[in-house]
Amino acid sequence: MSRKSVVIAAAGWPRAWERGGLIGAGVGATVRTRPNRSRTSNVPVVQSVAVDTTVLSRAMASTASSNMKILNEDNIYENIKKMEYAVRGPLLIRANEIEKELQKGAKKPFKEVLKANIGDAHAMGQKPITFLRQVLSLTVLPDLLNDPSYPEDAKSRARALLQACRGSVGCYTDSMGLEIVRKHIAQYIENRDGIPSNYENIFMGNGASDAIKSVLKLFAEKINNKPTGVMIPIPQYPLYSASISEFGLAEIGYFLDEDNKWALNIAELERSLNESKKSCNPRVLVVINPGNPTGQVLNRSNIEDILKFAHKHQLFIFADEVYQDNIYDKNCCFHSFKKVASELGAPYNQMELASFMSISKGYMGECGIRGGYAELINVDPTVMQLLRKSISAMLCPTVLGQVVMDVVTNTPKPNEPSYVKFEEEKRNTLLSLAERSQLAVDMLNSIPGYKTNPSMGAMYVFPRFEIPPKAIEAAKAKGQSPDLFYAFKLLEETGICVIAGSGFGQLPGTYHFRTTILPQKEKMKTMLTSLKEFHLKFLKEYS
Amino acid sequence: MSRKSVVIAAAGWPRAWERGGLIGAGVGATVRTRPNRSRTSNVPVVQSVAVDTTVLSRAMASTASSNMKILNEDNIYENIKKMEYAVRGPLLIRANEIEKELQKGAKKPFKEVLKANIGDAHAMGQKPITFLRQVLSLTVLPDLLNDPSYPEDAKSRARALLQACRGSVGCYTDSMGLEIVRKHIAQYIENRDGIPSNYENIFMGNGASDAIKSVLKLFAEKINNKPTGVMIPIPQYPLYSASISEFGLAEIGYFLDEDNKWALNIAELERSLNESKKSCNPRVLVVINPGNPTGQVLNRSNIEDILKFAHKHQLFIFADEVYQDNIYDKNCCFHSFKKVASELGAPYNQMELASFMSISKGYMGECGIRGGYAELINVDPTVMQLLRKSISAMLCPTVLGQVVMDVVTNTPKPNEPSYVKFEEEKRNTLLSLAERSQLAVDMLNSIPGYKTNPSMGAMYVFPRFEIPPKAIEAAKAKGQSPDLFYAFKLLEETGICVIAGSGFGQLPGTYHFRTTILPQKEKMKTMLTSLKEFHLKFLKEYS
Repeated sequence: MSRKSVVIAAAGWPRAWERGGLIGAGVGATVRTRPNRSRTSNVPVVQSVAVDTTVLSRAMASTASSNMKILNEDNIYENIKKMEYAVRGPLLIRANEIEKELQKGAKKPFKEVLKANIGDAHAMGQKPITFLRQVLSLTVLPDLLNDPSYPEDAKSRARALLQACRGSVGCYTDSMGLEIVRKHIAQYIENRDGIPSNYENIFMGNGASDAIKSVLKLFAEKINNKPTGVMIPIPQYPLYSASISEFGLAEIGYFLDEDNKWALNIAELERSLNESKKSCNPRVLVVINPGNPTGQVLNRSNIEDILKFAHKHQLFIFADEVYQDNIYDKNCCFHSFKKVASELGAPYNQMELASFMSISKGYMGECGIRGGYAELINVDPTVMQLLRKSISAMLCPTVLGQVVMDVVTNTPKPNEPSYVKFEEEKRNTLLSLAERSQLAVDMLNSIPGYKTNPSMGAMYVFPRFEIPPKAIEAAKAKGQSPDLFYAFKLLEETGICVIAGSGFGQLPGTYHFRTTILPQKEKMKTMLTSLKEFHLKFLKEYS
Repeated sequence: MSRKSVVIAAAGWPRAWERGGLIGAGVGATVRTRPNRSRTSNVPVVQSVAVDTTVLSRAMASTASSNMKILNEDNIYENIKKMEYAVRGPLLIRANEIEKELQKGAKKPFKEVLKANIGDAHAMGQKPITFLRQVLSLTVLPDLLNDPSYPEDAKSRARALLQACRGSVGCYTDSMGLEIVRKHIAQYIENRDGIPSNYENIFMGNGASDAIKSVLKLFAEKINNKPTGVMIPIPQYPLYSASISEFGLAEIGYFLDEDNKWALNIAELERSLNESKKSCNPRVLVVINPGNPTGQVLNRSNIEDILKFAHKHQLFIFADEVYQDNIYDKNCCFHSFKKVASELGAPYNQMELASFMSISKGYMGECGIRGGYAELINVDPTVMQLLRKSISAMLCPTVLGQVVMDVVTNTPKPNEPSYVKFEEEKRNTLLSLAERSQLAVDMLNSIPGYKTNPSMGAMYVFPRFEIPPKAIEAAKAKGQSPDLFYAFKLLEETGICVIAGSGFGQLPGTYHFRTTILPQKEKMKTMLTSLKEFHLKFLKEYS
């Protein structure tokens, strides 16, 4: 990998949203010119020509004030304007529009939109785990506890959960989550790592994203007038860049080594850290393992080096480990940062570390229910108190997400009636994902100009592909980044919705996209065949 | 009400958390002195004596770095330190401790802790609505659609919802919520108000709190170096003060008129607004109707006056209308701000307004499931786009909260099989709440020194009571506000957990607490009798 000197701090690399403009982002199609308003004045100077159809249809008679909104583009929170989240950006918005056009009978060269933009397993046909849904419905409708068709192990879990939440999942829980669930999570972590885990260090959220934001927010204090710097991989999962913008933090991008299976290179960490110090106080290092969007799985020695680097520079580690069950490469396995830090001994076993987990990924894929947790290791007890206080105004994470997390961390035991079926469903789901990840890599690498690293884990592949100079010119003429231009064209011509690499970050001059490996096998083959045809046509068109 | 000149901007009134110190806030009991560290320095000067038991137990051998945390009390985000949420503050933390002590066999003058601190209906014995839970379990476990024991109307709703979420509630939805649910919400609002509602102006959240924070956050921009001022009632629901702190906004408290059934007095609004202008740019007016913690229900002419005031001063209205179903006074009814603004005609029908609703309150009480919505009226379309973008990184609100909101806004129709039972359960729940609210007011007013306004709506009473001078001295000696001192003593001696008035705000020199009206009738009688005995003893002790 070339070591270009690129500092990426606070929105330093071009964003998909900015590059692509608002093309396709046609929510409530409005015509608007930027009103001529001083940023330091509270009074609009010139009326904007914003057209609010709601107002118009309801009160055509009246005028004036509809154009002088109290909250408008010019006085809305700047951090909100800056943030972007490409996974649900303009490409998805356009994909949704196309879906509606198809429903209305529009003729397209394809019959359906294939949403490979997001790790949404059930939407792609993955079946929910039976046991998990049984426990969930027993807690929702406790009368079912009298139904003999439910297995006893599902009932015993539901009874314990109902008792913990005082008879109804409609009750609020502790803001950190139910104690019983947090204890099961601690036990799950102990079983995984062979290292003690204390449930008081664990809190739950509405998905891992929620938990990540709750911890990241704590770092939003400026010191010496400089924001906290957060090191994130490039490519990264854009929740991080979005939250960094929202909280006014500084983004420090470190490039993953594409030529070395997306490994994490310590020299590159040093480079990006050093270059960032002018503009921020680096305090956080985010590592996503298994990687999103890259699919890399870090080996143990790489994790040791990262820990040593973080210790040397006093960085708080965010270990995004939501794909810990999604390991496909038989030659590697998941090592938690906590386990490696602990086994390295002092001083590494005292490093501050947050590890995140979700019910949305793995073999569960229960994205819509929203459940996640964070384990905070070696964190200052006063910080824990303040964290607890900061999440308490939101009352509690959804109890049903907690119920699912309880099942995930307290699965049927070998002597229980649901054991065999549960393990079989889990194994088959993961095997099928492994098979599809291999299929995706093989088929992508058969396309001229494509180069895809093996998908060792997670749910994505992030192929690199070449774009002919003429296409790059065409993209520039449209004010789009070349990869976004490519992804839009792919969507319009094939119905395949992927996310352009610029939404995750990539080395300048390289082009990628992220696709999930979630479409079922036959659909995946059709999709990849269609992609290949598109690419060949694209090359011809712009050669 | 006396018109004391009290400006309440950015933490202007003493907070329960500050007043009460951390007494009772014994999370992970730690001994800690504030390290002598310059706020502008990144390097700790003197080691704190924080005791992290996790570290100690795991790595007794090593020392030094455990006391020099990367994230600590001195560099954590200041806004997080400032925020407080009394409903889950030190009183609840102590109540939870007492519960554990009782479980371990501790002898107390009571057998159980009665948590009247929070509007958690199911926890107090209210039964879930059958139809609602049926639809929920049918969506969780679609096999139940073949079970003949479920009514057809529950099945038809579940089928429609499952189709909308592509077969599984485990799928992500649009970040704003499922279109089908948002359309039912719009229809519900239209039926309620007789005014059109557009589903594109509606978005859902994990509870109303989530939706409120998402909109409030948009105002966090400083203009002319001054924060946006947010007018909130005093007493208020502390989600507002907590979020105002978190987002760096300025709090402008306006006193509700206790002597006039907690009505909203326009002269007081003018006073507080005018006094705040030195330190902030007032842009938002929050009104909670029906009132929390006051239980007042605004009459129509009061709402008209408030709208005119907001229009005159260009304020964006937050109408917190989560208790819209909880009206107990037969002489009043709920008027939505949207309806009144619309019927006032131009220019009021063009005012920017956000209305919030929840599945946690009303007759549903489904707090733990987390579901809420905001309807945004007359909001700038670019702001709507930015709002959509800002919530997209959190993917979507829990689908099961959306399912419950669907039922709440699309209840069984007169020709459907569940109609009679549904309406009966709803009516009985609301009647029982009305009865208990009357009971609470009557019994509280029978206590010497207590004065309680009628509970016209919502789920709380907020009695005013006198504290003898000797008790005030005793409180001061403990560094607590007198009402917090009283509430702690009440908790320790009776097991009743209420929230001191200082957590909601009150006129200086007056003392209140908030209790819910949710304990079932007999328990409520016992609780109020016990409270009366406590108060008489308290008076004797400090007279």
